[in-house]
Amino acid sequence: MSRGNPSAPPIIETDPVRMRETILAARRQGRRVGFVPTMGALHRGHGSLVSRAAAECDDVVVSIFVNPKQFGPSEDYSRYPRTLDADRDLVGSCGARWVFVPEAQATYPPGHATNVVVGAPAADFEGAVRPGHFAGVATVVCWLFNVVPADIAYFGAKDWQQSVVVRRMVQDLAIPITIEVCPTIREPDGLALSSRNAYLSADERRRATALHEGLRAAARAWEAGEDVAAVEGMIRTALEARDIPVDYAVVVDPLSLLAPHPGSAAVALVAGRLGSTRLIDNLPLPPRG
Amino acid sequence: MSRGNPSAPPIIETDPVRMRETILAARRQGRRVGFVPTMGALHRGHGSLVSRAAAECDDVVVSIFVNPKQFGPSEDYSRYPRTLDADRDLVGSCGARWVFVPEAQATYPPGHATNVVVGAPAADFEGAVRPGHFAGVATVVCWLFNVVPADIAYFGAKDWQQSVVVRRMVQDLAIPITIEVCPTIREPDGLALSSRNAYLSADERRRATALHEGLRAAARAWEAGEDVAAVEGMIRTALEARDIPVDYAVVVDPLSLLAPHPGSAAVALVAGRLGSTRLIDNLPLPPRG
Repeated sequence: MSRGNPSAPPIIETDPVRMRETILAARRQGRRVGFVPTMGALHRGHGSLVSRAAAECDDVVVSIFVNPKQFGPSEDYSRYPRTLDADRDLVGSCGARWVFVPEAQATYPPGHATNVVVGAPAADFEGAVRPGHFAGVATVVCWLFNVVPADIAYFGAKDWQQSVVVRRMVQDLAIPITIEVCPTIREPDGLALSSRNAYLSADERRRATALHEGLRAAARAWEAGEDVAAVEGMIRTALEARDIPVDYAVVVDPLSLLAPHPGSAAVALVAGRLGSTRLIDNLPLPPRG
Repeated sequence: MSRGNPSAPPIIETDPVRMRETILAARRQGRRVGFVPTMGALHRGHGSLVSRAAAECDDVVVSIFVNPKQFGPSEDYSRYPRTLDADRDLVGSCGARWVFVPEAQATYPPGHATNVVVGAPAADFEGAVRPGHFAGVATVVCWLFNVVPADIAYFGAKDWQQSVVVRRMVQDLAIPITIEVCPTIREPDGLALSSRNAYLSADERRRATALHEGLRAAARAWEAGEDVAAVEGMIRTALEARDIPVDYAVVVDPLSLLAPHPGSAAVALVAGRLGSTRLIDNLPLPPRG
């Protein structure tokens, strides 16, 4: 399945009411609509989500909104890269029909006072390092799912905890959308694609491969039967060997983010700091006998 | 407008997925659907909401769910009246087509961790006396609006602050539903109808008219040009004269619940305690020159 005219550039829409009507009109015609919510500064990782959506749906909409509520006061909201023209070209080449670019005044009307707060799965890891971050994510994603009532929304596995938080919210609030989580896209040396990689100096970029190397070493140890603490220690060691301070390096249940069940699948999560840039990565770990 | 066969008793639906499909099917046929969310123990006040919905819509659905999350630990969740058969008869006679009675396990699936939290307008008054109450209300109403995707939802003005909180949430999250707030229904002596009136002893029932009497005295003082503090004092005096401890007695802006704007409409809100029963009431105050 794909949109009618893949050579046309995607249509920019800024008005939430018109956006919603456009999506509903497409669905009334029996078209399946896929949705890729983003903060812009798009790279091949986002492109892979759009391509997946275009392969599975008739129409694809990509939202670009640098959400102030999910940045902490000392974080990089103002310097977060904004590259709308390039973003539009990228998602157009991947098959997007619409690009939704809401203004902050529409997303947060005067007197805005509502937050969607996800508890347990948002508490640790990114939630602990970035207070308020996941409330900002859940609130804007809930708003987006009302304004863009698509069939399926696509998220990247790179932000594993975010995907868990979004799934939890969708289930708890009975939001009528299917969530698909798609594999992380990596550079040839294993570094996970991230808009924040652009902040890295040449030296930091070289050292940043330690995240993926640590995760791969952890996966080998996991499959060899090492216990959770030992597996977590391998990730930590890999980062520290490259002078990367570790925010966390854990092996947890993929959905609850609590201690993994013996014999079940797990996921290794890591976050480290390279200069003023925080990078995160993760690797699913298969069940083991 | 009204439903096809007003003599048939309403259909009970307990399954959220089927409920949603039923509503969507009606709307696909071009029918306008009205929704009255309740906690059961229905009285003529709820009946007036259902009748209004039946007058304005083609189909009406009433939900009955005694929501544990909006009761505090020391409140009356376990003793809250449950009268499903009578409720069904009442809403049927008012024109409801469906009664949605979800089970708590469906509303709060295992691992439930999401709360919709409305800030400023939920902070004072009921929100201050009942911590967590409005998060419970907003969360379940958000869930209900996804499961019952009606055109219009009807709320009673009796729970004024609740209606403000729901409106705020709907605007902030772009929930695609229209909110109608309908006038409070009263006993002949002025007592606002409430499921909790059933708790009152004969003596408490006689004294309970003080809430409405205080509000009416306040309205006269308001129209006579008294200042806000004096108007609030009249409500408080009316309750104290009948030995009713006052939780709050305030005159505020109808939408922000902050200090009223000079020359603009306002609303008087009151809450008092009769024995172990809390009663609330309010009265809109017109603009004054």
